[in-house]
Amino acid sequence: MPTALRGVYAPVLTPFDQNLQPDTQRFIAHCKWLVDNGAGLAIFGTNSEAASLSVDERLRLTDALLQAGVDPSVLMSGTGACALPDAVALTQHAVKAGAPGVLMLPPFYYKGVSDDGVFAYYAEVIERVGSSDLGIYLYHIPQMSQVPITLSVIERLLRRYPDTIKGAKDSSGDWENSKAMIENFGPDGFAVFPASESLLSKSLAIGGAGSISATVNMNPAGIRALFDGWNGEQGAELQASADRIRQIFQAVPMIPAMKRVVAEHANHADWSVVRPPLRALDDATAASVLDSLEKAGFTMPGYPV
Amino acid sequence: MPTALRGVYAPVLTPFDQNLQPDTQRFIAHCKWLVDNGAGLAIFGTNSEAASLSVDERLRLTDALLQAGVDPSVLMSGTGACALPDAVALTQHAVKAGAPGVLMLPPFYYKGVSDDGVFAYYAEVIERVGSSDLGIYLYHIPQMSQVPITLSVIERLLRRYPDTIKGAKDSSGDWENSKAMIENFGPDGFAVFPASESLLSKSLAIGGAGSISATVNMNPAGIRALFDGWNGEQGAELQASADRIRQIFQAVPMIPAMKRVVAEHANHADWSVVRPPLRALDDATAASVLDSLEKAGFTMPGYPV
Repeated sequence: MPTALRGVYAPVLTPFDQNLQPDTQRFIAHCKWLVDNGAGLAIFGTNSEAASLSVDERLRLTDALLQAGVDPSVLMSGTGACALPDAVALTQHAVKAGAPGVLMLPPFYYKGVSDDGVFAYYAEVIERVGSSDLGIYLYHIPQMSQVPITLSVIERLLRRYPDTIKGAKDSSGDWENSKAMIENFGPDGFAVFPASESLLSKSLAIGGAGSISATVNMNPAGIRALFDGWNGEQGAELQASADRIRQIFQAVPMIPAMKRVVAEHANHADWSVVRPPLRALDDATAASVLDSLEKAGFTMPGYPV
Repeated sequence: MPTALRGVYAPVLTPFDQNLQPDTQRFIAHCKWLVDNGAGLAIFGTNSEAASLSVDERLRLTDALLQAGVDPSVLMSGTGACALPDAVALTQHAVKAGAPGVLMLPPFYYKGVSDDGVFAYYAEVIERVGSSDLGIYLYHIPQMSQVPITLSVIERLLRRYPDTIKGAKDSSGDWENSKAMIENFGPDGFAVFPASESLLSKSLAIGGAGSISATVNMNPAGIRALFDGWNGEQGAELQASADRIRQIFQAVPMIPAMKRVVAEHANHADWSVVRPPLRALDDATAASVLDSLEKAGFTMPGYPV
């Protein structure tokens, strides 16, 4: 039975080449840089364009990462999928690989589905994977999935699978919802990760577990320092500093913006490539983002070039 | 270069067994019954729970259908997927199998994507499949996908790929949108299929191509008779008769309701099984649907038991 995770996780950006194929070497290098800067790896999240990857691509990238020597204990792998057999295959593979957690979207094609249907989906995955090493983090992101993971679904899952349901990522941006998750289920060891680091101090203060945030891809060391020091002397300053970087990305399409910024810092233009339906950032917006970042003193120290 | 299709298509229900595995034999039998009653086969649509099937399951069911002697010319295969490589693999397979049309959802995870991103997605699939035998029907179902296929995307795709973009299914239920599709692009041979047969007479009158409707699974002969005879002496009566059946299903969760009705008529309880997040119809609703159907004189003549 895995321990509930805590910390700062990056929903890892997935690099593509000009032919839209995943670039394994740049993926590994980006992951290692994140780990070196204190972040865990939430590979295959929304910011990873995971929905735009096939199951095979996700399996191959995971294998390559482990073969490159990344410790599986840093992984919280995204294994959600619309199709039950896909979610089972991805989750089984993550557990076998040694990931102490998987971050699972609900199936997101059908809308207006019942809580009972969402519960049944997670229950089927858990039963089929059938491993005491499985630790599930429920991925609540209603603005994308349009299928919420309600408090009552969490309660029912926790009652039925107390050793497997370990926590949730709350990407709703709704602080009242994150607060309710923490207050209702935190005391039983349920780990709640509000998505944005802008809520990090606030949520840690009431028992949150950390942050799984897009911009950990950009600012892992800063957000990790905030996680470690939010209640120390420098706490307010660390929060304000992380917020400044966050706000620059939040004002634009975040995934292409982050990739464009990596392209600059890694000196590798292909980092800008996204798979459709996403589009690369236009040059004017990119220039404005890079300018704002420079003014904010943003760097990616030690990024592999 | 394939000819634009016309007619009445069923988004074919996918039967599962108690272990949630596709039942190939019942799938084939259902398909053959539909064809015998004048319907084409839009396998792997929304009502097929296609999003709940893996790519491999879709490929295997297609192969089994053809091996069972179903003529590929009746196929309009659903090949949309969030991930580009999945859509390419499914589309390539359908073209190789001899399907004269594929019905393609846009990628549906990311919301608020641009028309440019939707265009780029279809363009990539078309370029990668690279076959002059490919005929694409765009699948507009904003209430599920949340990603509309706008008139301007259609126009741009038609201009760039006039031999490949053959039509659209409009599941919006918005008659003004179907009308605009038909009026704008119908004269160039673009085949528009409003989803519900309740719009069949109305749309055929202004140049529509037919219907791809859930309830063709229930009432193929009746809807086909309407398609053939809408402007004849019995036209109004055929429309009213089809509408009566439609309304019974439209009042309840359609996919589980249709499956439950097949279970009754095929005398095979497993037909009721759906994959989560969908749930089987509760017994009270089922009894009420079956009662309404009986009063409407509904039968499934010749359904294989």
